[in-house]
Amino acid sequence: MRLLVINPNTTAAVTDLAASAVRRVLPGVALRAVTGRFGGHYVASRATYAIAAHAALDALAEHGAGCDGVYLACFGDPGLLALKEVSAVPVVGMAEGALHLACTRGRRIGIVTGGALWKPMLEEFAASLGFAGRIAGIRTIAPTGGEIARDPDSALARLAAACRACAAEDGADVVVLGGAALAGLADRIAPDVPVPVLCSVEAGARMALAAAAVRAGRALPPAMASTGLAPALAALLAEPA
Amino acid sequence: MRLLVINPNTTAAVTDLAASAVRRVLPGVALRAVTGRFGGHYVASRATYAIAAHAALDALAEHGAGCDGVYLACFGDPGLLALKEVSAVPVVGMAEGALHLACTRGRRIGIVTGGALWKPMLEEFAASLGFAGRIAGIRTIAPTGGEIARDPDSALARLAAACRACAAEDGADVVVLGGAALAGLADRIAPDVPVPVLCSVEAGARMALAAAAVRAGRALPPAMASTGLAPALAALLAEPA
Amino acid sequence: MRLLVINPNTTAAVTDLAASAVRRVLPGVALRAVTGRFGGHYVASRATYAIAAHAALDALAEHGAGCDGVYLACFGDPGLLALKEVSAVPVVGMAEGALHLACTRGRRIGIVTGGALWKPMLEEFAASLGFAGRIAGIRTIAPTGGEIARDPDSALARLAAACRACAAEDGADVVVLGGAALAGLADRIAPDVPVPVLCSVEAGARMALAAAAVRAGRALPPAMASTGLAPALAALLAEPA
Amino acid sequence: MRLLVINPNTTAAVTDLAASAVRRVLPGVALRAVTGRFGGHYVASRATYAIAAHAALDALAEHGAGCDGVYLACFGDPGLLALKEVSAVPVVGMAEGALHLACTRGRRIGIVTGGALWKPMLEEFAASLGFAGRIAGIRTIAPTGGEIARDPDSALARLAAACRACAAEDGADVVVLGGAALAGLADRIAPDVPVPVLCSVEAGARMALAAAAVRAGRALPPAMASTGLAPALAALLAEPA
Amino acid sequence: MRLLVINPNTTAAVTDLAASAVRRVLPGVALRAVTGRFGGHYVASRATYAIAAHAALDALAEHGAGCDGVYLACFGDPGLLALKEVSAVPVVGMAEGALHLACTRGRRIGIVTGGALWKPMLEEFAASLGFAGRIAGIRTIAPTGGEIARDPDSALARLAAACRACAAEDGADVVVLGGAALAGLADRIAPDVPVPVLCSVEAGARMALAAAAVRAGRALPPAMASTGLAPALAALLAEPA
Amino acid sequence: MRLLVINPNTTAAVTDLAASAVRRVLPGVALRAVTGRFGGHYVASRATYAIAAHAALDALAEHGAGCDGVYLACFGDPGLLALKEVSAVPVVGMAEGALHLACTRGRRIGIVTGGALWKPMLEEFAASLGFAGRIAGIRTIAPTGGEIARDPDSALARLAAACRACAAEDGADVVVLGGAALAGLADRIAPDVPVPVLCSVEAGARMALAAAAVRAGRALPPAMASTGLAPALAALLAEPA
Repeated sequence: MRLLVINPNTTAAVTDLAASAVRRVLPGVALRAVTGRFGGHYVASRATYAIAAHAALDALAEHGAGCDGVYLACFGDPGLLALKEVSAVPVVGMAEGALHLACTRGRRIGIVTGGALWKPMLEEFAASLGFAGRIAGIRTIAPTGGEIARDPDSALARLAAACRACAAEDGADVVVLGGAALAGLADRIAPDVPVPVLCSVEAGARMALAAAAVRAGRALPPAMASTGLAPALAALLAEPA
Repeated sequence: MRLLVINPNTTAAVTDLAASAVRRVLPGVALRAVTGRFGGHYVASRATYAIAAHAALDALAEHGAGCDGVYLACFGDPGLLALKEVSAVPVVGMAEGALHLACTRGRRIGIVTGGALWKPMLEEFAASLGFAGRIAGIRTIAPTGGEIARDPDSALARLAAACRACAAEDGADVVVLGGAALAGLADRIAPDVPVPVLCSVEAGARMALAAAAVRAGRALPPAMASTGLAPALAALLAEPA
Repeated sequence: MRLLVINPNTTAAVTDLAASAVRRVLPGVALRAVTGRFGGHYVASRATYAIAAHAALDALAEHGAGCDGVYLACFGDPGLLALKEVSAVPVVGMAEGALHLACTRGRRIGIVTGGALWKPMLEEFAASLGFAGRIAGIRTIAPTGGEIARDPDSALARLAAACRACAAEDGADVVVLGGAALAGLADRIAPDVPVPVLCSVEAGARMALAAAAVRAGRALPPAMASTGLAPALAALLAEPA
Repeated sequence: MRLLVINPNTTAAVTDLAASAVRRVLPGVALRAVTGRFGGHYVASRATYAIAAHAALDALAEHGAGCDGVYLACFGDPGLLALKEVSAVPVVGMAEGALHLACTRGRRIGIVTGGALWKPMLEEFAASLGFAGRIAGIRTIAPTGGEIARDPDSALARLAAACRACAAEDGADVVVLGGAALAGLADRIAPDVPVPVLCSVEAGARMALAAAAVRAGRALPPAMASTGLAPALAALLAEPA
Repeated sequence: MRLLVINPNTTAAVTDLAASAVRRVLPGVALRAVTGRFGGHYVASRATYAIAAHAALDALAEHGAGCDGVYLACFGDPGLLALKEVSAVPVVGMAEGALHLACTRGRRIGIVTGGALWKPMLEEFAASLGFAGRIAGIRTIAPTGGEIARDPDSALARLAAACRACAAEDGADVVVLGGAALAGLADRIAPDVPVPVLCSVEAGARMALAAAAVRAGRALPPAMASTGLAPALAALLAEPA
Repeated sequence: MRLLVINPNTTAAVTDLAASAVRRVLPGVALRAVTGRFGGHYVASRATYAIAAHAALDALAEHGAGCDGVYLACFGDPGLLALKEVSAVPVVGMAEGALHLACTRGRRIGIVTGGALWKPMLEEFAASLGFAGRIAGIRTIAPTGGEIARDPDSALARLAAACRACAAEDGADVVVLGGAALAGLADRIAPDVPVPVLCSVEAGARMALAAAAVRAGRALPPAMASTGLAPALAALLAEPA
């Protein structure tokens, strides 16, 4: 099983963080981990999110050959449906996968992540995938994922407090700690939270593996002529495989 | 990884059918497969469904010791939330798991199964888990799962036709062929259906495996005194572990 | 008019409490009140709820002959749809009936009952019957119905406080005090609550009477073969009347 | 028990029809039946519906004294919430009551009535009361209720066909035959329909009786100064009782 | 462009207030502003709301000739759909128009107005037009619109506090200050509110102008015979133009 | 009033078509019309849609200076919320604006456009803006907008047939003919459709004008560092104005 891990922001350190976490939980899987060529250093606004969708497509076109599955490793999953449209192999997003897996663990899911602008964006994303009825609440802390990645220790207490608020005030049965940059922090805060805390990087990766293992056909998208794109992406649009 | 497979109806042949299918796709997992002690020969009505929930709890109490995860192998998942409440390890139902996995494959999910009474029951089940917005349509053929298990060949054409109608009339992007008794039929009808057809037994089992692999705490349910139940179930209720 | 009152838990004192309350408000109706043969002493968890559905079916099969209507006298209505499926006469559940009647009294309904685990269970039950848009909030106090039945006086203040919170914080226009074991308490706390408080036992019973009076046909369920059930229930499944 | 029956259109013959049907099923209840003073001869459009709400308030103010309950006997219930606001006793509308009672008889409710413009109006009314999830479909035949009242025989076949379509095409488990002017027709078409057909006049009346029997307080509305209204209505608004 | 502005309550001073505000923002439009002939001095309850719908129809019938569009200038829009049904030119309500325009300014809309009974009425109105998913919260202050019109200065602080609560507690991105009687106050409180505050009178009027400018056909409603209505309204119902 | 019209695909002929149509209906408005620098020649798939969002941001950053409002002239509105986030002046999308305006014309909106892949994309877009309850149905014809622009005459009959089906089968009260490339066709097919047909280019433009006229503050987005973007876009993200 070969999995392409796409980090659609432009910070390679976050790619490394996510890839390490995936390697830990899926030791038998061959990973290729790639970083966005253009866009925000971190995805923490609607504009950087929109650009990241293009960057994720660009990365898939450049690096997708030979993989059995794709893991879109940004919690919020920019470009998820576009990648599914043009990819020849199954694609699972980090938020998509983590939320599906969390649904088997509790009735009402809390989400905690970094960056205040993510709250409405994740509400809309979750609603767009049909999760609205399962979400207890979404809470963000002020530092963005990028900032937390640079200094995780100082964020731990705030993340744990947000998780506890998900349980106590929102009625969450389980909390997803979301974000590539937060890989590994779920275990550290779990002791301070009265409900299970799932690492989005791990949960999403396990879901990506399960999805990649199920063989089934797909519908080929139509060929699309384009202008001004990277050659690999233009080729993928022009001749979907 | 040891997985307890519970078939909550009272027909051992269906248990064998499901267990064989799980073994094929999860060769490295140790399975224990058990059959309901009481209830309908097949679950094909609301009354037999209600009784099957009790039978599934009874089976978990009797056979759950030592397993790492539980796979409730009846499409429609009688007793799912009750099992999750009292089980010390993760529980995934066949419909629950198959639908979550199918959601990563298509936007709108069709469901095809045997037994006309299942249609409203599955609609309500899917809605209760928050899937309503993802379901394109649910179609049943007249023979129940039990009847299909005894004579699968004569059901193939009708199942394929129902799957095609899911795609053409309901707009399904992917179809789940639901039912323990239908294990193995998805591959046989897939060539005649223009969208992917997923086997609920396989998809649910992969999801059960993914869920069982994620370690996280749980909330202990309260002790419940009871009367007239099997000793193992009475004990499980009285002293949740 | 002969009404079968089914208490699907295994505590006869609760049956007596509910039957007395029904007799008070429906003096002209002939009641037969029966208690579950097996299951939790009280229904206060998902597992005991699932078993109570089987016990309610068992009771209907044993005692249903000759009645004109069935009143499932457990607030939360375990087995409601299964009973409707196999019963030859109209069946109304206590929560079902009380909520329908409450809907004519106010736009937004509050629910107060005993036992913390009931909150999500009642949310799901209410949603499954389509009441989600009418529910202002559901509040529970820690003692279960069984505990309140044994010592109602000490629960009164907490019940009244929960009802007031339904009005003030949740915006309820009317509150249903739910639970067979809480029969008669609505009148005692109403003076301390600024919105109407309905007794679920009375409201459900009036609705059961109205429903039983309307004559109309029904669809016969299919015959179901079974194993290991009580003879009356096995017979009812095998030969629906 | 004294029940005020308000027909908010201006055709006394429809009032008589509805009152006769109510007397048949509630023989022990004292009825006062009144007709709207102004507005459409029949309510069969949004404009006549809006005016009928005013006429119903006007009728309540003029004739409400001394009644124990109010039955708003127009299927679609113009002015329902306004009447509930100012009435000192419980008010139940014909569609409101019939739909609540029908919900105890089947999961999915079909509605059949006369007058094509009623379809969207009833969809919105049902949604406004939270019934949207329970409605299988609403079908109208071209003649309005008024026309059907004048010549019921010629409408029977079309009404039965619409009821059958509710069952076969919309999946209705039970059909409500709606309209004061259709009183008595349900029994005549029931033999030709494969699911139960409820008479809205009877079902609503039984619900009105059940609601009127439950004693509970109410919130007084604020006093409202007005201009140009009938004296009784102006007085009711100015001094709510 | 000639716009008929209908104030469906019976206070001419409110009509003048709204008309002045519309003139300010639409200087090139010819206005005819009319006041309800009967009903509550202000619309601040369900009963006065129901009567105002009739009064709005009455005003349209009397004064609608020759206009290019109709602006129903009462926030909450009594009779909106009835007016649309019988009007030969586009009709836009103040709440309808303001909410549509607000939706282009923010994801989640807060509403602030005067009169406590408006809260559930506006919730239902907004839901009936499909806005439910866009409404962050609706907050009212105790004085009604009529009272605020007589003494706006003393209401400013409370209105601003309610707007701030919409932003801080409900998560509103934009707040609509609703009510004909509140014309002109949005600008005064905007400096004290951290999100945009829209004047419903202006926003609704701009929407009415945009709608009136789009030429398109309409469906003629059926002729309706009536009794006891003003001659112009009776004629409009009898011969829709 | 200066309006920036952004066509986010890369075909200048479509930009010209849309700009001409806007000029016709808004003769007093100064237009600047721009075309995407990169991406699909037409937006007719999820991948080209995702890239168009980036292209629209790129165009706004390059050409937005000095405008009073932005009209995102692609029906489906790629990048709409991202543009609203970073734009200093109001932004309205073609589908957003046309749907809001259509909502004032009819209860249930039909949508007809070119390109089969648009149907689920528009369903999701409409749902994301809260329109789901107002959409009667979305119908596409096989040729994409680009193909229709090149040969509109041969598409007219199919577009009219789709509009008629929206009315007859989906119950639409009004139909929006969506697509920059379909500018001007609504008038040509309206005579063959029994309900009003709105041109999305015109309706959206009128809405953009109304929105641009309402002055109100906005929240500044945070500064975002980026890599590999066009200088104007990188500057807009780094220093939002």
